[in-house]
Amino acid sequence: MQALIFDRGKARVDDVRKPSPRPGLALVRVIASGICNTDFELQRGYHAFSGIPGHEFVGIVEGPKRSRWKGKRVVGEINLACGRCGWCRKGLGRHCPRRSVLGIRGHPGAHAAYLTLPEENLRAVPRSISDVEAVFVEPLAAACEILDQVKIAKGVHAAVLGPGKLGRLAAQVLTHAGAGVSLLGRDNRAHPHSFDLVVEATGSREGMPRALELVRPRGTIVWKTTHHAPAHFDAAPLVVNEVTVVGSRCGRFEPAIRLLAQGEVSVVDLVSREFPLSRATKALAEAARPGVRKVILRPPA
Amino acid sequence: MQALIFDRGKARVDDVRKPSPRPGLALVRVIASGICNTDFELQRGYHAFSGIPGHEFVGIVEGPKRSRWKGKRVVGEINLACGRCGWCRKGLGRHCPRRSVLGIRGHPGAHAAYLTLPEENLRAVPRSISDVEAVFVEPLAAACEILDQVKIAKGVHAAVLGPGKLGRLAAQVLTHAGAGVSLLGRDNRAHPHSFDLVVEATGSREGMPRALELVRPRGTIVWKTTHHAPAHFDAAPLVVNEVTVVGSRCGRFEPAIRLLAQGEVSVVDLVSREFPLSRATKALAEAARPGVRKVILRPPA
Repeated sequence: MQALIFDRGKARVDDVRKPSPRPGLALVRVIASGICNTDFELQRGYHAFSGIPGHEFVGIVEGPKRSRWKGKRVVGEINLACGRCGWCRKGLGRHCPRRSVLGIRGHPGAHAAYLTLPEENLRAVPRSISDVEAVFVEPLAAACEILDQVKIAKGVHAAVLGPGKLGRLAAQVLTHAGAGVSLLGRDNRAHPHSFDLVVEATGSREGMPRALELVRPRGTIVWKTTHHAPAHFDAAPLVVNEVTVVGSRCGRFEPAIRLLAQGEVSVVDLVSREFPLSRATKALAEAARPGVRKVILRPPA
Repeated sequence: MQALIFDRGKARVDDVRKPSPRPGLALVRVIASGICNTDFELQRGYHAFSGIPGHEFVGIVEGPKRSRWKGKRVVGEINLACGRCGWCRKGLGRHCPRRSVLGIRGHPGAHAAYLTLPEENLRAVPRSISDVEAVFVEPLAAACEILDQVKIAKGVHAAVLGPGKLGRLAAQVLTHAGAGVSLLGRDNRAHPHSFDLVVEATGSREGMPRALELVRPRGTIVWKTTHHAPAHFDAAPLVVNEVTVVGSRCGRFEPAIRLLAQGEVSVVDLVSREFPLSRATKALAEAARPGVRKVILRPPA
């Protein structure tokens, strides 16, 4: 099958063996996958990654033969948990220490004609959600995770730093939850120490110092950026102003599917372009250009 | 009057004018003051400080003449708030943006024969608390602040990093609140990702990376260190493990006074030595030596 491969910092599209899943894993034919900034981080060496990247997708389940999932259109939770440890028993397999992660750590990803995932990771996609919208379930779940972590009081004054894909999703989710939201780019000015909540989704090292400048004393910063380079900032304002910083990563898929199905969040305007999977390296270059939003890959049908 | 002065990085004891407080300020004759690590940070240039340092003290109120405080033995909250802004109205003058801070910012400190403080900052010291114990009310309040910020469930597995003065106070406070506490120095080993709560009180830049290594996924780090140099650490584990970091500074005095009065916390073994104020520069050098705990200064009686 066709797949995008990262190999020591280089990207190429190649023919690789179609996976034959071990028991418990479903075989999913990928309809479309989305390029995420994490893919660039992986290409640059984050997690010392090599293999097939990609963790945002929608697909059709082709096997196993007798699976109740067969023929269904699905998205999938990206953390493959052990299912037995304390975290898994609490329903928090996303933090299982023995997990592998689709297209990120120890499990081949979605920028390919086929992928495998445990059946319990699959979520059916309602008809009212289009293929392209379904590709956004994973990043939208990451935005919804904020609501699971921080109580959003009605009228809360929130800033989202980084008007990229995740930032725009987070802004919509927070608005829907009742917050007053300012979506701020690098050049947008705002009053220092005036926000109850700041979501740092810049993907850059400059995000945290700016978040500390904007958040009010005793306010909360949700930190979304995973950068391959160490953070570097003056932490004194964090301590002196008693700011709370909440690291935030993946989220449950259910709230994201619900928001999309009900049309509460709009994602189609976040798509910049589609490419066939065969032109994935070109697509990566396009996705990396400043101002470009979501780039979608489509394997041959 | 005699006072310790910091002037462009140099420390000296000098004779300065005894303060004649403006209305609303009490005049306090200092019985004893404690040297805090923040004093060293100030000497090194934190807050571009110059003047009289010192913010841990016990003293006797000498004026104004008709004050209800006159003759009382007191400690004092160190933040001088405006009393009118939103923060002050919420009882959080510790975060008033126009505040000055005793011996730290814009208000002469306690390493002197006399100091001034607003009467509303004063707290009476019960007889059961000795002078030396009373000097610990301010740092103990900073340790108690953790309880105001983080809910401590019974049996919580907590680590305190930095077996210095603040670390030892925090460990006692957390133990009293029902946590199981490991007080860890640089050379103490512990299982990675095994603590629900980690209090970072090392006073060094190495504290935060270590805290991130020890805290469990979705656990909490209370960050106490205010260092004059920027923090520098790999923040990816913070985001990926969805850790919450809570900046923590000064606290309310009442819980600290209560703990000391009831003998629930022991501080006298934290005192290394006493010096007369006249030998304050010698005392600073002593306090800076590794392993030395609290050094107390006593102005001439």
